[in-house]
Amino acid sequence: MREFVPPAARFADLPAEFTLRRGGTLSGARVAYETVGRLTPERDNAVLVLTGLSPDSHVASHPQDPSPGWWEAMVGPGKPVDTDRWFVICVNALGSCKGSTGPASTDPGTGRPYGPDFPELSMEDVADAAAHTVRALGVERLACLVGTSMGGMSALSLLARHPGLARAHLNICGAANSLPFATAIRSLQREAIRFDPQWNEGRYDSATYPHRGMLTARKLGMTTYRSAREWDSRFGRSRIAAERRTDDDPFGPEFEVEAYLDCHARKFARRFDPNSYLFLSRAMDRFDLGESCATTTARALARIRLEKALVIGVETDILFPLRQQREIADGLAAGGTDTAFLALESEEGHDAFLVDIDRFGTPVAKFLTTL
Amino acid sequence: MREFVPPAARFADLPAEFTLRRGGTLSGARVAYETVGRLTPERDNAVLVLTGLSPDSHVASHPQDPSPGWWEAMVGPGKPVDTDRWFVICVNALGSCKGSTGPASTDPGTGRPYGPDFPELSMEDVADAAAHTVRALGVERLACLVGTSMGGMSALSLLARHPGLARAHLNICGAANSLPFATAIRSLQREAIRFDPQWNEGRYDSATYPHRGMLTARKLGMTTYRSAREWDSRFGRSRIAAERRTDDDPFGPEFEVEAYLDCHARKFARRFDPNSYLFLSRAMDRFDLGESCATTTARALARIRLEKALVIGVETDILFPLRQQREIADGLAAGGTDTAFLALESEEGHDAFLVDIDRFGTPVAKFLTTL
Repeated sequence: MREFVPPAARFADLPAEFTLRRGGTLSGARVAYETVGRLTPERDNAVLVLTGLSPDSHVASHPQDPSPGWWEAMVGPGKPVDTDRWFVICVNALGSCKGSTGPASTDPGTGRPYGPDFPELSMEDVADAAAHTVRALGVERLACLVGTSMGGMSALSLLARHPGLARAHLNICGAANSLPFATAIRSLQREAIRFDPQWNEGRYDSATYPHRGMLTARKLGMTTYRSAREWDSRFGRSRIAAERRTDDDPFGPEFEVEAYLDCHARKFARRFDPNSYLFLSRAMDRFDLGESCATTTARALARIRLEKALVIGVETDILFPLRQQREIADGLAAGGTDTAFLALESEEGHDAFLVDIDRFGTPVAKFLTTL
Repeated sequence: MREFVPPAARFADLPAEFTLRRGGTLSGARVAYETVGRLTPERDNAVLVLTGLSPDSHVASHPQDPSPGWWEAMVGPGKPVDTDRWFVICVNALGSCKGSTGPASTDPGTGRPYGPDFPELSMEDVADAAAHTVRALGVERLACLVGTSMGGMSALSLLARHPGLARAHLNICGAANSLPFATAIRSLQREAIRFDPQWNEGRYDSATYPHRGMLTARKLGMTTYRSAREWDSRFGRSRIAAERRTDDDPFGPEFEVEAYLDCHARKFARRFDPNSYLFLSRAMDRFDLGESCATTTARALARIRLEKALVIGVETDILFPLRQQREIADGLAAGGTDTAFLALESEEGHDAFLVDIDRFGTPVAKFLTTL
């Protein structure tokens, strides 16, 4: 998996023995991160971006890696997250496979990859590792903590576990816990991987790799990342041209929507470690901010102390539905945080924040300007 | 699969050589059906029910089989589809495995099950086989044709291909074609079966059976049959009690929603032929009433001649979304049919017609009363 570490990634060492919330310990673990922009001498302009399940630390292009980042349209000089003003830090989640320590990393105790023996990971660990990275960079207080999708979960966890580390918070398509529909989808994604005989209880290598399971898992994810309406206008009932059909399987793909899923899943399947997928996916299902704080979701949110927050959701998001962002906004507001809630009408579903910059750019820019 | 034929099923023989729309031929094929109620001497009170993907012909209890049918709450004496007045015929779809000829049936040419060599099935064939069955019962004109889910597709096909066979039509959670989200889900269901090594290109038996693939396919279907909101209130974040956990797989089911999917999928997986699933699922994706009639969907619908129609959809249905029922109603109305369209607010999603009888019963009863 080393080849999937972005070229400009730097690394923050976690404490020599990093204890996870569920009891396991990682020795010599590290977090991959990148920064864009310049930290002020007062160290008061840092913005931390916590990512969804799959992105790496390369959030946007910068001199050390001019290739476009996963949020290139949003982050950069003069862009909504303006790196002429902000020092943007993006970390790869602990447990991922893009530079941060995860199941594909070598277990120093055995000299082999952790694989399925990686300790039980939780969103709280992802949050703690990110908080540690921020402090390792000499930042004691973030101007803003930004979390998207899964990053909206780990961000809430970070706020609850590290009071005072952020002044403001921008939560985009996030959630304070997982609801049963999302859990069902993720459970099926994990099943697709686990039922692939090549998964072999997590002991695969590049030759015996659960490729089919990863394809199905990714395709299933994609059915929940966009909206049915967007697909109606994008694909309709278009069929794959005969010359582009890659197989003669009578039950194989016939429609453009199937080709689209197949093409994107093929790009992904070998670029994300299946065990990482399982560990992070399960951590999302288990995430429950209220439970984690031994109280209700509403109370846990109300305990978070921030100056300002903006919570954005999308009406067509079926994976992190709008009621979950409303819950976050209501909870933060109840605790006294100056909170705005924005329900965008985007047709792009959960992934709108990645593609519908027309709708997301202005409110994000405006919010950051007020900080 | 013989054991899944309902005990009271009767059989209508199709013509000795039944030619399918895509060119194949079935020899000595038959359709399983049941009837509830009594046909009037004028033969003017017949109501045909066309089913979704999985139900059999046992729509409701009757003297020959007093066990509850799949639409027991809706069909029977004094019920919304009142069998004191109506003679209800329910057919098992051609290509299914519950009595009608399908991939699990014996190919008289080889003496073995058709399996993957079953001819390419389409919704039009399902419709033609049903129309043949109706006529074989001595009914030249149905008082009403009822189609639910997939049956709403085959019903439209029947109306287009057999003008005059029905006076009225009740379309429930149906569609005039498949949209990309539904196709994506069905494509993944087929993939789950096809990727199961035990599928063996469709040549399995009860010892080597693609059980895991069927489990995943069914669970995935279930995520689209109900609504996320219903699951929120039904399961929330409840966990499976430790003593009920059936495995110690670290990535196995932990939440009640997963146990629910697992339990229902296990009931289904061995009770539906995987090849039938593939053939019917593909036929749904390919169904396009407009294409079938060599015109647009709207024109194909407007050409259908009926006295009255009622089209019902559910706001929370993500598999056959409401815009598809509106399209049917608009098209029928444009052709001069006295058409009512009803959008129900049920939280039960696509399956609401099976469970939310409180909402469905009254409009169905009322509509049938006016005939």
